[in-house]
Amino acid sequence: MSKLTQIQKWSDEQHADLVYVSDPKTIQYLTGFYSDPVERVLALIVFPNQDPFMFAPALEVEAIKDTGFKYPVYGYLDHENPWQQIAAQVSKRQPNVHTVGLEKNHLSVDRLDSLKSIFSDATFDLNISPFFEKMRLIKSDDEIEKLDIAGKWADFAFERGFEAVKAGRTEQQVAAELEYALMQKGIMEMSFDTLVQAGAHAAEPHGATNGTKFKNNELILFDLGTVWDGYISDASRTVALGKPTEKQLDIYNVCLEAQLAAQDAAKPGITAASLDKIARDIISKAGYGDYFIHRLGHGMGMSEHEFPSIMEGNDLVLEPGMCFSIEPGIYIPGVAGVRIEDCIHITENGNKPFTHTPKKLNYVG
Amino acid sequence: MSKLTQIQKWSDEQHADLVYVSDPKTIQYLTGFYSDPVERVLALIVFPNQDPFMFAPALEVEAIKDTGFKYPVYGYLDHENPWQQIAAQVSKRQPNVHTVGLEKNHLSVDRLDSLKSIFSDATFDLNISPFFEKMRLIKSDDEIEKLDIAGKWADFAFERGFEAVKAGRTEQQVAAELEYALMQKGIMEMSFDTLVQAGAHAAEPHGATNGTKFKNNELILFDLGTVWDGYISDASRTVALGKPTEKQLDIYNVCLEAQLAAQDAAKPGITAASLDKIARDIISKAGYGDYFIHRLGHGMGMSEHEFPSIMEGNDLVLEPGMCFSIEPGIYIPGVAGVRIEDCIHITENGNKPFTHTPKKLNYVG
Repeated sequence: MSKLTQIQKWSDEQHADLVYVSDPKTIQYLTGFYSDPVERVLALIVFPNQDPFMFAPALEVEAIKDTGFKYPVYGYLDHENPWQQIAAQVSKRQPNVHTVGLEKNHLSVDRLDSLKSIFSDATFDLNISPFFEKMRLIKSDDEIEKLDIAGKWADFAFERGFEAVKAGRTEQQVAAELEYALMQKGIMEMSFDTLVQAGAHAAEPHGATNGTKFKNNELILFDLGTVWDGYISDASRTVALGKPTEKQLDIYNVCLEAQLAAQDAAKPGITAASLDKIARDIISKAGYGDYFIHRLGHGMGMSEHEFPSIMEGNDLVLEPGMCFSIEPGIYIPGVAGVRIEDCIHITENGNKPFTHTPKKLNYVG
Repeated sequence: MSKLTQIQKWSDEQHADLVYVSDPKTIQYLTGFYSDPVERVLALIVFPNQDPFMFAPALEVEAIKDTGFKYPVYGYLDHENPWQQIAAQVSKRQPNVHTVGLEKNHLSVDRLDSLKSIFSDATFDLNISPFFEKMRLIKSDDEIEKLDIAGKWADFAFERGFEAVKAGRTEQQVAAELEYALMQKGIMEMSFDTLVQAGAHAAEPHGATNGTKFKNNELILFDLGTVWDGYISDASRTVALGKPTEKQLDIYNVCLEAQLAAQDAAKPGITAASLDKIARDIISKAGYGDYFIHRLGHGMGMSEHEFPSIMEGNDLVLEPGMCFSIEPGIYIPGVAGVRIEDCIHITENGNKPFTHTPKKLNYVG
């Protein structure tokens, strides 16, 4: 059953008169077309028993048709009122709108107000976000293939990044080299801002790549990912320049042990929470528990923020096709930040990673 | 009066018990701290008569404090319920919450549901988005200075991009060269995906840079921008490789005439709509009106999607400090796409552009 047919079936079961799909990533998942319209209106409107239509800024209409979307596409100009046009198209298909399904995790309150103004007799409590989250939770073979390719480009980026490290160079220079190497291969989009952090700077887990210079005898953290045909990679490695201290090496080894143990345990039947616990217990036992201040991992696919979340309290049982990161981190202010991360997909018997850069401590420079 | 004091005053006047600020860009505008928390919760909570506080993912707390935010910052861990913690902090300051102000243009419907669950006696109709839009509409000297610097880097990027054009090279290769040149100077962030489009490909106004090769005797469209300290640049130039056709030259000249006429007319007292009309009339009179399918410009500052919108129907009178793009475009499928764009700020007597790359047709390659 096609994805659109599944939504039609869902909306029929839920007695929705229409479903208003607004998240550009959902639209991409369903149709192959991606554009972030920012403040303009882009929506896919699905009915239980009629063909859907797309509503978009006029300057996107040709691009939507080019992706092979076989239903009507209506464009509006910047100075026109999109809501009146949507109402007119809907009324041709569904004159009485009583129940509207929404993506509550995406739609803004003012857009909800606009929908309320055109469908004044309707209720808007029906949330389709959990349905899409569940659809996207299990990746198809076709999706796994794209994630594999995105992963290979992340491995390539690590290789070029590690080669570029030299004492005296800056984090930004190394990020520039690896991104340039990717762009020369036609990989123009990173899945998030590339992170290269040297020494104590890496103890800021959400800090940014800056002009910090590499010094000898420290650890350097890389966290990066690429986009391939709408699917992403996301991986982290921590490497050594010169001779790290005993303390730094200990942190690295504990983090690696935690990462390998969790990755080894990832298979159908285990819960997300217990995977987090395996890694967390190793780090806590070594005395670094207070420095591991985020969940073990996040789901990924078209973005790095999908389900399942690999954390305490999530009793979701893992199944084949689920894709997520395994990324323990230990961040000790003033000393070092270490994170080691692969994203994997659960298989019938275990799991396979999307990235293959070795995790044994790599001495670079 | 500080920006936070202005919000306190507003919330007092509106009888709000608290204002829930959720847009990361607004938080950056008010505090200097920027992070996109994606699915995590980041909020600045402002009260009419008490100090505000920030609520953030635990791994962001240090970075927030480092920016000099002088009020309390509370962090939550991934497996914790952020809403209970927010409710607890609010109740210490404001035990009875009847009226909550929201950013309706940002807050998602499910976040609104979460707020309703913790403030069950409150109403949520009060929208603070228009107040912030108005605050951000007039840029301060300090903001203009940052926009000027971002503009200078856009000029630098054009120079390097134009140098890189050669028949046989691809759009992506040229985008790579100009972004690499920027990164080598420490400019790591573009304000949007760099657009380089050759020949007929440029007639897709929202298409993407791809592997299209440059051929002799065509026009090439560049649209790019950089980020400097949270402020952006955004500019477009169309250049010639070899000898364009008469038709292409005509399109270029009409577009340039429209751009110059509108930029020349931009000063205090004129409306946004009439500026759009000046450019549109020139293009329509030349017979290309049907191919100019977007508004003349958009406001800009911390993003390229701010107010004022320069379009038909917007009777806003321009004032000093307003910043926006002037970017007529003519897109003829199969022939060429031409767009010429500077962003400007309105001054006491006229306007000043942030970018200075010449607009006379540049023959490159």
